[in-house]
Amino acid sequence: MSGNTFGKIFRVTTFGESHGKALGAIVDGCPSNLSLSEEDIQLQLNRRRPNASDLSTPRMEKDNVTILSGVFNGKTLGTPICAMIQNEDIGTSEYNVLQNIFRPGHADYTYEKKYGIRDYRSGGRSSGRETIGRVIGGAIAMKVLKEKNIIVSARGSYDLSKLANENGDVDFDNVNDSIGGIVECVVKGCPAGLGEPVFDKLDAELAKACMSIGAVKGVEIGAGFDVTTMTGSENNDQMSSSEKFLTNNAGGILGGISNGNDIVVRVAIKPTPTIAKKQKTIDINGNETEVELKGRNDICIVDRVVVVVESMVAMTILDYYLQNKICNIDNL
Amino acid sequence: MSGNTFGKIFRVTTFGESHGKALGAIVDGCPSNLSLSEEDIQLQLNRRRPNASDLSTPRMEKDNVTILSGVFNGKTLGTPICAMIQNEDIGTSEYNVLQNIFRPGHADYTYEKKYGIRDYRSGGRSSGRETIGRVIGGAIAMKVLKEKNIIVSARGSYDLSKLANENGDVDFDNVNDSIGGIVECVVKGCPAGLGEPVFDKLDAELAKACMSIGAVKGVEIGAGFDVTTMTGSENNDQMSSSEKFLTNNAGGILGGISNGNDIVVRVAIKPTPTIAKKQKTIDINGNETEVELKGRNDICIVDRVVVVVESMVAMTILDYYLQNKICNIDNL
Amino acid sequence: MSGNTFGKIFRVTTFGESHGKALGAIVDGCPSNLSLSEEDIQLQLNRRRPNASDLSTPRMEKDNVTILSGVFNGKTLGTPICAMIQNEDIGTSEYNVLQNIFRPGHADYTYEKKYGIRDYRSGGRSSGRETIGRVIGGAIAMKVLKEKNIIVSARGSYDLSKLANENGDVDFDNVNDSIGGIVECVVKGCPAGLGEPVFDKLDAELAKACMSIGAVKGVEIGAGFDVTTMTGSENNDQMSSSEKFLTNNAGGILGGISNGNDIVVRVAIKPTPTIAKKQKTIDINGNETEVELKGRNDICIVDRVVVVVESMVAMTILDYYLQNKICNIDNL
Amino acid sequence: MSGNTFGKIFRVTTFGESHGKALGAIVDGCPSNLSLSEEDIQLQLNRRRPNASDLSTPRMEKDNVTILSGVFNGKTLGTPICAMIQNEDIGTSEYNVLQNIFRPGHADYTYEKKYGIRDYRSGGRSSGRETIGRVIGGAIAMKVLKEKNIIVSARGSYDLSKLANENGDVDFDNVNDSIGGIVECVVKGCPAGLGEPVFDKLDAELAKACMSIGAVKGVEIGAGFDVTTMTGSENNDQMSSSEKFLTNNAGGILGGISNGNDIVVRVAIKPTPTIAKKQKTIDINGNETEVELKGRNDICIVDRVVVVVESMVAMTILDYYLQNKICNIDNL
Repeated sequence: MSGNTFGKIFRVTTFGESHGKALGAIVDGCPSNLSLSEEDIQLQLNRRRPNASDLSTPRMEKDNVTILSGVFNGKTLGTPICAMIQNEDIGTSEYNVLQNIFRPGHADYTYEKKYGIRDYRSGGRSSGRETIGRVIGGAIAMKVLKEKNIIVSARGSYDLSKLANENGDVDFDNVNDSIGGIVECVVKGCPAGLGEPVFDKLDAELAKACMSIGAVKGVEIGAGFDVTTMTGSENNDQMSSSEKFLTNNAGGILGGISNGNDIVVRVAIKPTPTIAKKQKTIDINGNETEVELKGRNDICIVDRVVVVVESMVAMTILDYYLQNKICNIDNL
Repeated sequence: MSGNTFGKIFRVTTFGESHGKALGAIVDGCPSNLSLSEEDIQLQLNRRRPNASDLSTPRMEKDNVTILSGVFNGKTLGTPICAMIQNEDIGTSEYNVLQNIFRPGHADYTYEKKYGIRDYRSGGRSSGRETIGRVIGGAIAMKVLKEKNIIVSARGSYDLSKLANENGDVDFDNVNDSIGGIVECVVKGCPAGLGEPVFDKLDAELAKACMSIGAVKGVEIGAGFDVTTMTGSENNDQMSSSEKFLTNNAGGILGGISNGNDIVVRVAIKPTPTIAKKQKTIDINGNETEVELKGRNDICIVDRVVVVVESMVAMTILDYYLQNKICNIDNL
Repeated sequence: MSGNTFGKIFRVTTFGESHGKALGAIVDGCPSNLSLSEEDIQLQLNRRRPNASDLSTPRMEKDNVTILSGVFNGKTLGTPICAMIQNEDIGTSEYNVLQNIFRPGHADYTYEKKYGIRDYRSGGRSSGRETIGRVIGGAIAMKVLKEKNIIVSARGSYDLSKLANENGDVDFDNVNDSIGGIVECVVKGCPAGLGEPVFDKLDAELAKACMSIGAVKGVEIGAGFDVTTMTGSENNDQMSSSEKFLTNNAGGILGGISNGNDIVVRVAIKPTPTIAKKQKTIDINGNETEVELKGRNDICIVDRVVVVVESMVAMTILDYYLQNKICNIDNL
Repeated sequence: MSGNTFGKIFRVTTFGESHGKALGAIVDGCPSNLSLSEEDIQLQLNRRRPNASDLSTPRMEKDNVTILSGVFNGKTLGTPICAMIQNEDIGTSEYNVLQNIFRPGHADYTYEKKYGIRDYRSGGRSSGRETIGRVIGGAIAMKVLKEKNIIVSARGSYDLSKLANENGDVDFDNVNDSIGGIVECVVKGCPAGLGEPVFDKLDAELAKACMSIGAVKGVEIGAGFDVTTMTGSENNDQMSSSEKFLTNNAGGILGGISNGNDIVVRVAIKPTPTIAKKQKTIDINGNETEVELKGRNDICIVDRVVVVVESMVAMTILDYYLQNKICNIDNL
C-alpha cells in the first residue's frame, strides 16, 4: 500500500525512480517561521553524492535541488515543502540487459513478485538514489533541531583488507568485489522525555528509520548486542546527583524515552550487491543464467550512507521532539 | 502522544499498568469469520507467565483472559476484539519504597521526566506485564497466519556461566545479578511480496516491532552485523532455477520485500535491570542514594520473551500480508 | 480494515456489541496530570441513557463505568485510559427472529454483505449502544478542554406533530412510527488557529466526526446550506477592530481554521428505523418477507444523541488544540 | 501538523501555493499495472480551469501536467506517482496591497493567527489553486474505479437571479457580488460492502472529503436534511427480492457501509468571497479599514468545483474499495 511516508507529525513523503524524471520529497508538518533555503538542503545532498574517491560510482549527477513550495521570503509557511532534483543521466539502453534477469542481492526479484512490473533501470525505486528524498527531509529536520541545540552526526567505518591483493594493496581499477561496514550516529543535546511508549518507543522508531535504508541489515542502541554477554550490574547505568548517568550502555534511551544522555545508534551496512564477479541467478522465465555487473557501482557505500543515517535519525528525533510537546497538561 | 497502537490494517492497541485493575488489548482490523476462542489466546499467555523454573519471578498471576467483544458464536465479526486479564496481586504497600527513587536500568526516571507523574508500582506501564497486550494481539495474528500456512516460531539462548560461582554452579537462591541473551525468530511459509517500500520495508517494521519490546537493544535480519565483515560475493544470495536462493544471508528479505525464503530475525535481550546488588542512583529530588532490589524478579527473562517476539513478528507479518493483497490491480 | 479509532493525537478506540459482554474505549494520547474520575465519565454516560420520558426505549441498562488503566491517584498518567461498562441485559432469545431477516433502515444487510457474518442481536456493533465508547472519549476530552476554558454544548430540536392523531395528541403507548430532528452544537472559548489545511480542515474533521454517528445524514457549519441562497456580500463576515467579526455565517471557521468566533455545527438526525409498522424486506436467502418491530425502541433519539454530538465535537476540538501547539517554531 | 494527505491506502499528498513555483501531488498506494498517461490527468485538470464563460476569473493558466515518477512504459509501478504543474502567471506586485489586510470571507486572518506568517499572494495555500492536487489524485482514482465499472459524476446548480438587475439580466462586466450553489455527486456501480465502521463509515469519510474543499459549508447524504421532517416509515428504504431497495433515502449507505444503491452526496458551495463591493475589515495591526477586491475572480465557482467534488468522492470510494478487499478471511 502506501509506504513512502515517514513520521507522524513531521512527515516526509518521497518519490522518484533512479532513472525517472525527478526525485524528491514533500515535507509536511514542518513548523512555520523556520529560515530555510535551497542551500541548506544542497549542502546535505552534496554529502551523499558520489565523490572523487576510488570507492564510488562514476555516475556523476549534479543533484541540484529546487524548492517548489512551502517557503516564502526565506521562511517556512507551515504548508507542505516540496523539494526535488531532476535526473540528467537517464540514458537507458545500457540497462536493457537487466530487463530480463534478477541481480543477486538486489530487489529485482521481489519487486517483480510484488508488483508484477518493475522499472529495471538501475533498480528503479529500489536504487540508492531513492535516498535523495530522505536527505531532503533530513536536511530540513536538522535545521529545526539546530534551533533547539540538538546535533545529529554520524561517521562510518569499514575494512578494505578483504579487497586487498597479496601485497596488501587494493587495486581499485580491477577490484571486482565489494565491502560493507558500520555507521554510528550520535545525537547530542537531546532533552529527556522524547519517545512514546509502548510501541512507538524512541529506540523502536530509530530502528525502523535506520533499517528502512536499503543496505542496512542490523541496528543496535547503546551497548547493543554486547548486552547479551553482560550482567545486569555491568549493564545498568547508575546515576549520580545532577541527574547524570555514570555510564551510557543504554545509548541514551530508557523504557523507550530519551534520558538526556547522548543517543547512540549503530547500523550494519551490507556490501554493495553490484559486483563484477560472475554470479548465478535466474531470468524472468525462471531459467538459470549468470550475471556479471560492470560499470557504475560503488565498491563501498559506507561513506555515502553516513548522511542518510543522519537524515533518518534527525527526522525521527524531530518528530518525537514535537510529539513530546503535548504530553503533559501542565505544559499546554 | 499516542504510541500504544501497532499496525496499519491489523491494529493492536494495548492498555494496562503492572498493578492496575486490568491489562489487555483491542485488536481492530482482524478479518471476519476466523474461528477464535479464549483458549487460543490463553495458550500463548501461559507461555509468557513466569514458570516454575529457577529463573523467573515468584509473582504468580493466573492471567486468565476474557474476550469482551468482536467474537460471536466462535467466529470473529470483523469488529474490534477486546480481550483482557484482570490483575489479582495488586498489593501496593511493598512498592512504596519505589515512590521516591529511580531504579537503574528502569524507565522510572524517563517516565517522570516525560509525564511529570508515574505509577511507581513495579514500573506501571513500563513493566514487563505490558507485554500481555502484545501476546493477545500475537495469538490472534498467529491464528490467522496459520490459516495461510505461515508459521512463526522463536527460541531463546543465554549463558548462565556469568552467574556461576567458583565451582561453576549457579546458586539460584542467592544469585544477586542477572543476564540477558538472544532470541531468534523464524517465519516459515511466508510468500514472496510482503513489505512496503521505501520507509515501511518489511525488515524496517520488524525492527521496530522487536525493538519496541522493553528489554531489546539490538535487532538484525539474516546475516545481520556479520555482513560488515563479508564481501559482496560472499553475502549475495545467488539463485537457482525454481526460484530458490542458494543461501539466506538476506534473512528472507530483499529491498524490504519478502523473497519466499525463511525470514530470520535476531534480537538482543538485555539483562534484567532489577538486581539485588547495591547500586547508585538518585531520588526524585536529585539527591544521591543507593538501592537494592530484592524480591519478585527474573534472573533471566529470555525464555519468557520468546512468545513476545513471536507475537510482534506475527502481527507484523499479518499486517503486511493484508497490505500486500491490494498492491496490484491484476489481483483486485 | 480498522475503523474504530478516532483522532490523531488524542485517539479514541472503541469496542463492543449491543449484547456482548462489555462496551468501552481506550483513550490514548490524553495529556498526563489531568484530574479524572469515573464520575466525570459517568455523568456524561447518564445523559445518553434512555430516560423516563415517553420517547425512549424501555431497555434500562445502568451503564456503570469502570476505569481499568491510565489513571493513578486521581490523575492521568499519560498512558492509555481504558474505561468500560458491562452489559447486563443480554438475554438473546427474543432476538432470534432477527437472525434471518434484514431490518429496513438498519445495517443488517450491509454488515452481512461486508463481513459474511453479523451479531444479529439488536444490530450488534451497529447498535446505538456503540456510542458508549464515544461518550467515554468525549467526557475525557471535555475535561481537558474545560481546563482551557473551552466549552462544548449541544441541544436538540424535533417536531412531534407528525406522530399526532387527529386531536393533535401523541398516544405514546400506541405510536408505531418515529421521527428525527436536528442537533446543534456550539463551541465557546475556542481560540483562533485550530485546524490543519488542506484535507484536515477543522470543519472537515467535524463533518466526519458527526457524520460517523449512526443516525446522522447531514452536517453543516455556520450558515450551512443557506449559503447557497446568499450573495458574497451577504455571506462574508466583515471585521471590526479588536479582531471581532460582525457576523458569524462562517460558523467560526475560515479556510479550515478556527477564527475565534463560536464554532457552530448542525446535524440532521434521521427517524429511528425501528418502527412497529409492517415493512417490506427480504430474508438472508433473498426471499421477500415483511417485518414489524415491537418492543425496546425509541420514538425519537434526538435527546439522547445530544451528548454523543458533544462528545464527537469535543474529541475533535481537543485533537486539533493539541495539534496546533506544534505548528509554529516560535512557540516551541 | 501534517494535514495535506488524504486517504489510508490510496494516499494523496498535495503541495503548492497559488503563486509559488508549482502545484501538485504525490499519489502513494495506487495499484501497480494500471495504464496511466499524462492525458488522463490533463483531461480532468482542464475541467477545473477557468473557462471562457462570464462567470470565471480571467487568470488563464495552462496547467499542463507532468508525471515525474511512478509510471514506466505507460503503466503504474506501485511506487509513488508525483505529478505537477508549474505556475506561469506569478507576477506578484499587484498583490502587495493584500500584504497588510485580511480579506473578509478568506483565510488570511486565520493563517496569520495559526502560522504567524502567510503567503499573501492570492491566498497562497488557501487559494482555490490548491485543488489542482486534488484533481490529480481524483483523475488517477477515477481511472482505477473505471476498471471496476464504478463511475463518479457530479453536476452543479446555482441561481443567478440574485445578481440580476431590475430587468432580470446579469451585467457580467459590472456585477460586483457573487453567488454559490449546490453540487450533487452520484456514484454508480459501487458494490455493497464499502465502509469501515464505526468512525470511518463511508458517509463520514465522504463528508470529510467534501467539507475539506474550501468553499463547502454543508454536506448531506441521500435525503440529507430532509430526514428531519420525515417519519421512520417514510424514510426507511424497504427491500424487495433480488436485493433491491424500493427507495434510496439512505443515499446508498446504511450503517456506514455501501448497500449497492447509487451513492448520493450533496454539498453546499458558498458564494465566492472575493467581491468588488466595499467591505469592512482590519489590517494586520488590528486597525479598521475597508477593502474592495477587483480583478481576477469568479462570480460563481460552482461549475469549476464539480470536478473537485468528483475527485474527492472518487479518492474516497477507491480507498474504501481497497480496504474492503481484506475484511473477510474467506476472501483472502
